[in-house]
Amino acid sequence: MISTEPSDAPIPGKAPALTNSALQTETSLRGALSETQRNHILAAVDMAFESQVSFLSDLIRCASLREHEAEVQQLVEATLLDRGYDVQRQMLDQALIGKHPAFSPATIGYENSWNVIALHNPAIIQGRSLILNAHVDIVPTGDPKRWQYPPFEPWRDGEWLYGRGSGDMKAGLSAVIFALDAIRAAGLELTAPVQIHSVVEEEITGNGAAMALASGKVADAVLIPEPTDEKLVRANSGVIKFAITINGTPAHPREVSGGVSALDAAIRLIKRLRHLETRWNEERTTKPFFDDVDNPAALTIGTINGGEWIASVPSCCRFEGRIGFYPGDNPQERVKEFEAFVATAAAGDPLLQRCPLPTVDWVGVLHAGYTLAPGSEAEAVLSEAHAGANAPDGTPLQAYVMACYLDAAVYSVHAGIPSLVYGPIAENIHAIDERVSLPSLRRVTKAIALFAASWCGVRRVETTHQISAAGVDT
Amino acid sequence: MISTEPSDAPIPGKAPALTNSALQTETSLRGALSETQRNHILAAVDMAFESQVSFLSDLIRCASLREHEAEVQQLVEATLLDRGYDVQRQMLDQALIGKHPAFSPATIGYENSWNVIALHNPAIIQGRSLILNAHVDIVPTGDPKRWQYPPFEPWRDGEWLYGRGSGDMKAGLSAVIFALDAIRAAGLELTAPVQIHSVVEEEITGNGAAMALASGKVADAVLIPEPTDEKLVRANSGVIKFAITINGTPAHPREVSGGVSALDAAIRLIKRLRHLETRWNEERTTKPFFDDVDNPAALTIGTINGGEWIASVPSCCRFEGRIGFYPGDNPQERVKEFEAFVATAAAGDPLLQRCPLPTVDWVGVLHAGYTLAPGSEAEAVLSEAHAGANAPDGTPLQAYVMACYLDAAVYSVHAGIPSLVYGPIAENIHAIDERVSLPSLRRVTKAIALFAASWCGVRRVETTHQISAAGVDT
Repeated sequence: MISTEPSDAPIPGKAPALTNSALQTETSLRGALSETQRNHILAAVDMAFESQVSFLSDLIRCASLREHEAEVQQLVEATLLDRGYDVQRQMLDQALIGKHPAFSPATIGYENSWNVIALHNPAIIQGRSLILNAHVDIVPTGDPKRWQYPPFEPWRDGEWLYGRGSGDMKAGLSAVIFALDAIRAAGLELTAPVQIHSVVEEEITGNGAAMALASGKVADAVLIPEPTDEKLVRANSGVIKFAITINGTPAHPREVSGGVSALDAAIRLIKRLRHLETRWNEERTTKPFFDDVDNPAALTIGTINGGEWIASVPSCCRFEGRIGFYPGDNPQERVKEFEAFVATAAAGDPLLQRCPLPTVDWVGVLHAGYTLAPGSEAEAVLSEAHAGANAPDGTPLQAYVMACYLDAAVYSVHAGIPSLVYGPIAENIHAIDERVSLPSLRRVTKAIALFAASWCGVRRVETTHQISAAGVDT
Repeated sequence: MISTEPSDAPIPGKAPALTNSALQTETSLRGALSETQRNHILAAVDMAFESQVSFLSDLIRCASLREHEAEVQQLVEATLLDRGYDVQRQMLDQALIGKHPAFSPATIGYENSWNVIALHNPAIIQGRSLILNAHVDIVPTGDPKRWQYPPFEPWRDGEWLYGRGSGDMKAGLSAVIFALDAIRAAGLELTAPVQIHSVVEEEITGNGAAMALASGKVADAVLIPEPTDEKLVRANSGVIKFAITINGTPAHPREVSGGVSALDAAIRLIKRLRHLETRWNEERTTKPFFDDVDNPAALTIGTINGGEWIASVPSCCRFEGRIGFYPGDNPQERVKEFEAFVATAAAGDPLLQRCPLPTVDWVGVLHAGYTLAPGSEAEAVLSEAHAGANAPDGTPLQAYVMACYLDAAVYSVHAGIPSLVYGPIAENIHAIDERVSLPSLRRVTKAIALFAASWCGVRRVETTHQISAAGVDT
């Protein structure tokens, strides 16, 4: 049902004109930038860069943890409205979730978690359309006292900007917005529709991107500036996220032998699950691009909660985690394999035998991985943009495999859209002292600007030399 | 500093007259009950037993979890005032805690957790004084859906009364109150001061009993009807309760090798702590009464909480537990031994080496165990009372070792008071479907009544045949 191959079937909501390959070729030629245009765009990124860092700092100040994304989305919304985009606040449609294959199981209501979708639809359409996607949700900080700087008070230290979400991926969101600004500031207008998808839920379900796609928002390419150290993602993992609950038999410490510790049972099961990780990792030898990836399955137990009293044998233990697999694998088949493994492991362990069968709930991403087939035109255009942004010293664009879920999988797997994940150098994402490299962010912003201009094509317009997309003269 | 031997030193607050052994002997003879007195007391327990079960049910309905003991204490207070006792609401004095050796580390404020102390001080004092102690705090229920009956809706099924706290130890509290009622209903008054200590915090720190003792509430014996299957506790464990916190290095699943899972590190440490449990268990061969106890150290990991995001390597993991040792052991020495073991274990484990040294906090009982030396007069009187309550079919009173903390340790260790722990048959304490045997509760109530009457001595008074200690005619 789910395939990682680009689909030949018509994509619902995709404008037929934009998939016309004859037009694409024509636009490609037309989209080639002049030396002057390129230099103007690069200069415009430089000129606005301090404003971009200031905006990025504002994004970081919004502690957009799960279910708390409204503040940052309001900022994004206002920023995009100010620039003249056609902006839509897109609620996640609970009725759609579970019916469309792009969605993963939702474990919360989405009243407070919504996407911002912005569109610039030029009067003259000649080029290839583009989605620039970034997620605004972040993961928790861990103990803030372990941070060198408070995680929601962005702090610039030399070439680095610190803060939770700085790298993953508010820097990327700033790059998207300021790259398009730079094109306008260079006196140019894109000649194809460009959308900005500022989405939620990437860190847990991917349902923000799924909602954008399920609502018919498609394009000829997607670019997502996740922190990739200025490399391009060639392939990523499919991922499933589970919660396992084990019920033990509680007891008083004076008679522990009459109880069965749910925690001890959980530890046994975690140990056995490592065998499944090993087994899934060993499959990499037969999987394109993954054979030299260190730990593609990467079983991560992210949380554990067990027991409720210091002096009782724990009655219950629950742990959550994720495990990965390979592009082309059907996630539903991996779910079945995982559940069967848990059942077999429990049946084969003397302690787990004394507990009811552990329950497995699916509480987050349940999605296939994707591959960006080498040789695409989108990749070629990005390579050139990367080179242009890094001239004269840059290295050619490198591609690599990322063993985690990426929203690019939604657009790639379910709509066959070439999906480019390419973003700045960042360190300590999901960790303490997350930081993004500002010189890298500047280069990536330039590369995105050059990519968008080349991919969509440009035409000269009157410019007020303001960093604004508002008031375009058609 | 702390000794399990009865102290020869004067006990602060202890009335000198009550420790006069000549008087004790005289009173002992005088305290012997006549056949008629005994039969009247037993009949009075029978007559009020349905009222007792009703009162016990009311106690169970009060969900007296930690920091929520006020409701049940108000019920106890009203019940004791109604019977004419001199009743005191005793706050736990934060200024005392930490200074008096009876206290263990407090991890909460005690604004909502207070003792009820009731005193009956007869005009004619001839016998030996007595403290009847019971704790009102209970442990959490686990998932209420796993209970056959809702845990705070007491349910009688044949000979059993179900409910959280039914056995541990609200049945015992009802036995204390109704045993004294029965003596009054039999037309008798005790001829020595008797106190009821309805205390909090037994399940975590023992600070309720410690407060009672530190405030000078002492007597010639203490009886605590914990659920002991109608046996007498010969000795119990010293117990220390710890919380261990491990900080790892959080990371994104795409680069797990760069992180150190605090959960994985915690699992390693728990595994190593089992060696400490084994080592401490092996010491039992040299310890009086403990050589045939199955698992006297009983390392129990009661709770665990780690990580904060399903798809991050956990930055932190904290687990709480308890471990036991032997009467006569200084708990502070055991604390040092435990901390040294943790440090050594962490230094010797490749994963724990990559974390900061785990921190050990002491978050509950930190107390020595006690021994009830065989041959005491208190035990002899209880044996006779037990036989009287179980006639004609009963078995002689048996003694056994209980490998857990008991509030009796406070009175025994710090005041040298003979401490009798003897109570009803209960099942599933600290577990699902806790229940107490009602026939057993009836027998124990009888035994406590006979014990109190014999120990304190009795004299005939006018009786209204009401279950009340009020309006005693002196």
